[in-house]
Amino acid sequence: MTEFWTAENLEEMVSSRSKILGPQVWAAATPDPRQIISFAGGLPDIPSLPGEVLLRAARTVIDREQKEALEYGGTFGPTPLRDAIAKRSSRIEGIPLTRDNVIIASGSAHAIGMVCETLLDPGDVVMVESPNFPGSMRTIRSFGATQVAIPMDEQGMRCDILEAELQKLADQGRRAKFIYCIPTHQNPAGCTLQLDRREKLLELARRFNTFILEDDAYGELWFETPPPPSLFSLSNGDHGIKVSSFSKIIATGLRMGWVMGPPALVSRIAALRYDMGTSPFLGRIVAEMIRNGDLDRHIVNLRRTYLKKLERVEDALAKYTSDYATYVRPLGGFFLWLQLRPDLNSRDVQMAANERGVIVGQGPQFFADGRATNHIRLAFSYVAMEEIEEGLHRLGEAMAEVASRSTAK
Amino acid sequence: MTEFWTAENLEEMVSSRSKILGPQVWAAATPDPRQIISFAGGLPDIPSLPGEVLLRAARTVIDREQKEALEYGGTFGPTPLRDAIAKRSSRIEGIPLTRDNVIIASGSAHAIGMVCETLLDPGDVVMVESPNFPGSMRTIRSFGATQVAIPMDEQGMRCDILEAELQKLADQGRRAKFIYCIPTHQNPAGCTLQLDRREKLLELARRFNTFILEDDAYGELWFETPPPPSLFSLSNGDHGIKVSSFSKIIATGLRMGWVMGPPALVSRIAALRYDMGTSPFLGRIVAEMIRNGDLDRHIVNLRRTYLKKLERVEDALAKYTSDYATYVRPLGGFFLWLQLRPDLNSRDVQMAANERGVIVGQGPQFFADGRATNHIRLAFSYVAMEEIEEGLHRLGEAMAEVASRSTAK
Repeated sequence: MTEFWTAENLEEMVSSRSKILGPQVWAAATPDPRQIISFAGGLPDIPSLPGEVLLRAARTVIDREQKEALEYGGTFGPTPLRDAIAKRSSRIEGIPLTRDNVIIASGSAHAIGMVCETLLDPGDVVMVESPNFPGSMRTIRSFGATQVAIPMDEQGMRCDILEAELQKLADQGRRAKFIYCIPTHQNPAGCTLQLDRREKLLELARRFNTFILEDDAYGELWFETPPPPSLFSLSNGDHGIKVSSFSKIIATGLRMGWVMGPPALVSRIAALRYDMGTSPFLGRIVAEMIRNGDLDRHIVNLRRTYLKKLERVEDALAKYTSDYATYVRPLGGFFLWLQLRPDLNSRDVQMAANERGVIVGQGPQFFADGRATNHIRLAFSYVAMEEIEEGLHRLGEAMAEVASRSTAK
Repeated sequence: MTEFWTAENLEEMVSSRSKILGPQVWAAATPDPRQIISFAGGLPDIPSLPGEVLLRAARTVIDREQKEALEYGGTFGPTPLRDAIAKRSSRIEGIPLTRDNVIIASGSAHAIGMVCETLLDPGDVVMVESPNFPGSMRTIRSFGATQVAIPMDEQGMRCDILEAELQKLADQGRRAKFIYCIPTHQNPAGCTLQLDRREKLLELARRFNTFILEDDAYGELWFETPPPPSLFSLSNGDHGIKVSSFSKIIATGLRMGWVMGPPALVSRIAALRYDMGTSPFLGRIVAEMIRNGDLDRHIVNLRRTYLKKLERVEDALAKYTSDYATYVRPLGGFFLWLQLRPDLNSRDVQMAANERGVIVGQGPQFFADGRATNHIRLAFSYVAMEEIEEGLHRLGEAMAEVASRSTAK
């Protein structure tokens, strides 16, 4: 085959956005031939994947509404799913919501992308809590926006610093397009923004006339106590845009999520969409799972499973890593954010763990500026229960090795 | 609920792209309480929708590969589907293809959007055959590109005019980013680009150093004779980007399509994607339908069904509309493009038909400049077999009424 279009001569054809991101691709992980123990990916527990529940819902959908499920469902997504989400969310958020507040997306990554497409032009400013989910930061960057990193402490985003940054922009006659945050069971830091900070954040968004983009992929996965009301709820569905996903509460392989927001914005997002909406077939399967109670039952089980995994992780950390790292116990979600001793660098620990067949997320990828840190993200959701102790034993050995090397220097 | 963000004050927040399109939304059609006979939508035959086949494939997927189906599948889409498409397309196109030539999209509308995202900046030029599918023209417009309309005749796009337009650009030191066309069973015109024109088109793309974006949503749905080789095939997979869809050969409600092209471009499209790929669950269901032969068998049945519908339509047109309209018989696809008598305006006929409970697609929506025409698009794919005669009877009455009004003037 002649290859007229190679990577090189293609460069002059591609768009500015494509040039910002370059040719790097995130492909599916190829299986590692070694016996790997992975604390890397934010993926659900494998034995809990609800294949049979999905098939049962699919059967119902085909029996009852095959025509509607197999035809276009409109840009907002299938109406029964929007209705089911609005009804369920009205209960969870404690505010009245209708389908007009909801648009279905192909996962929350797509949802965040749609919000960016609708709001961002090159040169716009977005406030992002830091550390943060690399996928979202990459998406925001691809639209040519500047990200201002707002640091966090154990209670979540530092609203005093946020206020100063918003004020700085206002002094230049500008405003941020939105404030991007994961206030509940944060990725990667695991912390949860406390109620008083939520109120402060909302007050700032109102005062400085900007949106809050609240990423709530993990909000429902609390362990023992439900989190404070969402920013979306506190704002009465006004200043907040809340992006949620069925990825962590059903399966990442569905590619199904949603945006909730003021109807005017939801409608504007729909207007810019060119994909003719997320699959009505899949959407109606999920709607059936909501209606028949399967989703709520599944979430109750997941909370128990992830709490058990967290407890197993904590037991092992106490045994193997307590000399080298500390953490704040997460109240839910998939992640535990280990702070290493100052003399331990996360990249060294990651590499030493890797040599022992253990994969972890290391700090720099979670910072927009890729700065070196002494943090390690442990996803405890995916790793098999019976491998947790062995995996963290090896991680402890990796830390010991790095520590002994650093002492030797 | 306080509505801080209304449609009005939102306007200053939205992106340039959002401003180009404005707030209009394509929502799902709400059922018309009247007994409507619709020749409007390019939708598959309802009784042929393969719900049971999909469920069977879903059962196999969950039994055999639940984990892979319910986890992220990467930005290119699930590997088994890319492999199945590459293998099947190698046979159809007669050129060797691998998964590197394929990226899965959420329908061909999404596929076309991804190509636009990857190639287009505001001010770029795209050549589009005219008339054309409004959805694609809207997508191209949303990226700020200028569309140069290339008229068609019975053999498809007028390549002599295309050449002159490409030359005009070249004289200004510019080039088109791509040439967008639906060469086989065109939407709306129903015609098929003949082989010599395909070769000419390809030669022009090479000479003027631009891509061909070939939309092939209807290519496999021929009635009696297969169409000429695709532009993608004729170019050995080099200059052509071919966009295809499972919408018309399985169901529009899947939202599943794909792009085939040179690996460098396919990879560049993947790199710009922010939605973490099209659903592995759905993708593996479709891959199973390809592997077990269900898809090929289904397509053979569809060809018979649509030929029968076309014959029924032709019989009725001969009886009821031959005084008012002519057409060229399509060789496949969903559409018949009626050319009305010069004294009949398509908008008037559409409205008169609508009053009789019959919906048709009228000409202007298929032209980028929305010019008035005397064309009507009849989609014969969706309307029930037993309603075709009655529907076209009423359409004939509508034409007669418009003709008598025009005589009376």
